[in-house]
Amino acid sequence: MRRLDGLGTPLESVKGRRCLVTGGLGFIGSNLALALARADADVTVVDACYPRHGANPRNLDAPGGERVCRVTADLADASARDAVDGVDLVFNLAGQVSHVDSMTDPVFDLDVNTRSQLAFLEALRWANPDATVVFTSTRQLFGKPRYLPVDEEHPVAPVDVNGITKHAAEQLHLLYGEQYGLRVSVVRLTNVFGPRQRLRDDFQGFLPIFIRRALLGQPISLFGDGAQERDCLYVDDVVDCLVRGALTPDASGEVFNVGNDEHLSLRVIADLIVAAAGSGTVETVPWPPDRDSIDIGSYFGDSSKAKRVLGWSPETTFADGIERTVAFYREHLSRYL
Amino acid sequence: MRRLDGLGTPLESVKGRRCLVTGGLGFIGSNLALALARADADVTVVDACYPRHGANPRNLDAPGGERVCRVTADLADASARDAVDGVDLVFNLAGQVSHVDSMTDPVFDLDVNTRSQLAFLEALRWANPDATVVFTSTRQLFGKPRYLPVDEEHPVAPVDVNGITKHAAEQLHLLYGEQYGLRVSVVRLTNVFGPRQRLRDDFQGFLPIFIRRALLGQPISLFGDGAQERDCLYVDDVVDCLVRGALTPDASGEVFNVGNDEHLSLRVIADLIVAAAGSGTVETVPWPPDRDSIDIGSYFGDSSKAKRVLGWSPETTFADGIERTVAFYREHLSRYL
Repeated sequence: MRRLDGLGTPLESVKGRRCLVTGGLGFIGSNLALALARADADVTVVDACYPRHGANPRNLDAPGGERVCRVTADLADASARDAVDGVDLVFNLAGQVSHVDSMTDPVFDLDVNTRSQLAFLEALRWANPDATVVFTSTRQLFGKPRYLPVDEEHPVAPVDVNGITKHAAEQLHLLYGEQYGLRVSVVRLTNVFGPRQRLRDDFQGFLPIFIRRALLGQPISLFGDGAQERDCLYVDDVVDCLVRGALTPDASGEVFNVGNDEHLSLRVIADLIVAAAGSGTVETVPWPPDRDSIDIGSYFGDSSKAKRVLGWSPETTFADGIERTVAFYREHLSRYL
Repeated sequence: MRRLDGLGTPLESVKGRRCLVTGGLGFIGSNLALALARADADVTVVDACYPRHGANPRNLDAPGGERVCRVTADLADASARDAVDGVDLVFNLAGQVSHVDSMTDPVFDLDVNTRSQLAFLEALRWANPDATVVFTSTRQLFGKPRYLPVDEEHPVAPVDVNGITKHAAEQLHLLYGEQYGLRVSVVRLTNVFGPRQRLRDDFQGFLPIFIRRALLGQPISLFGDGAQERDCLYVDDVVDCLVRGALTPDASGEVFNVGNDEHLSLRVIADLIVAAAGSGTVETVPWPPDRDSIDIGSYFGDSSKAKRVLGWSPETTFADGIERTVAFYREHLSRYL
């Protein structure tokens, strides 16, 4: 990872610091927790381990994982409140990410993504108002983009319950920063891929679906010609961004759209995944009749602000990232299916 | 009340229709429930009767009130879900309105204003997707206005938990309208005054505070010169607007800023209240040191869209409304203190 001005590499700077990673048994959370632990931070993860969510206890079965303290708790639970005491850096990644599930069980989505987050913010406010908090949100709350690339000024227009509950949680984080002095930043992530992502089902976005199908030698189905573009981020680049968010004083009170200048069509993404896996195929199917309700067209984010303020930019091409990802799953696929 | 094109007066059109008023023992809800009952609608009110909220069982001690069916329930309770069955028009006014309380007990504010509303929308979706729903929201979610008058395109920028939870509930209502066919409209109200408003404490906005102090012969304190302008609505004009919202097909899926073209300074408002009451005084005090955090300057809404789509406009001047209000409280003050 590159240098933060005056700070050495971001990960060198976390040495000895007390870090809390919520959702730390999940995909991004576990990669972050391992990176922090390997950099000699003092790491605790809190994870509710809800079924169908991304938590996987084996995600920490890797060098560094043995030094990570684990708390199984919803963020509204007393043990999560206890865990904030004395922490320097809070990486707040816990959440329900499935858009489909947010429509099937909307109250649970609100409970996890907003209510528990609010209870957690209250715990921080009262027990540890000096903490620095990086909250991860999602590009999905922009809905169908009005213009590209999507910057932080783009109107928020959630198209499902998940977008509404995540947006409310963003606003609560920023409010607690303004009112109570917490140093809070919000990172709105685009589609992320890499090792330790749940592949088992179809609720974590299109990338794990594509990856699973290729690894299992199944066809990847694209609607129409698959020409819609996306920006994807390899998880190590996201870890780098989150650490920079926590260590950059000017990030406080700010929202960052974190995407990638490498825009690829779904067709190219699928082809690269099949090529890396050496298995699977890509097929196209006609758009279903309700196309308008599901097609957001192309999406890619404008990460200029994150680059300027955090000194961040993604280092991993999709082709490189997917090769590393496939190599990981070749070794550990059974854990993730 | 004026005529809706082709519908006679709005209240004539509710005759025989099954109406549900949530928050129906509160200030606006009870005035609405009484108006509907007097127009021979079949009216049920649901109210959780939370302490410190606006519910007052004696609000329905008036002609028509004897025909209103009462359910004491939070909107997430089974008995509230039952009450939606077979209803034609839902006036969804239930909520926590205190901005101060939303900061003191934010999780409760979220529970009442968002979580219970979401559970209620689920009940409507499954039990009665043909219902028409008018949801009341607040101008407070605009925060300090960027321009005046504030129209529906003005950015939402909540300054407290209440603004965030009400905005989330608005978005959930609109989403349920789009996804499940409910006919939903959202009415963002400015400061409302009139009979049946809780005067006891200081959590319902500045108007009931001013009115109580004048009626009790106490001084009304204004910061600085009291030159900031507000638009106020007499409750009968709000009732008219809500009924129009429910009866106007084109209101479905729409948000309306509902304010008043009569803009009055806080100084003039206080003077008119003292004049109507025949008691109390107005005094000015210096702005406290944290002025920036509490002063939103002037606020008034642009009601052009409500006028155009709903055929609505307020009929009651502040001077007339406050005279009727004072007359009501002269007779019933002990119920409200």
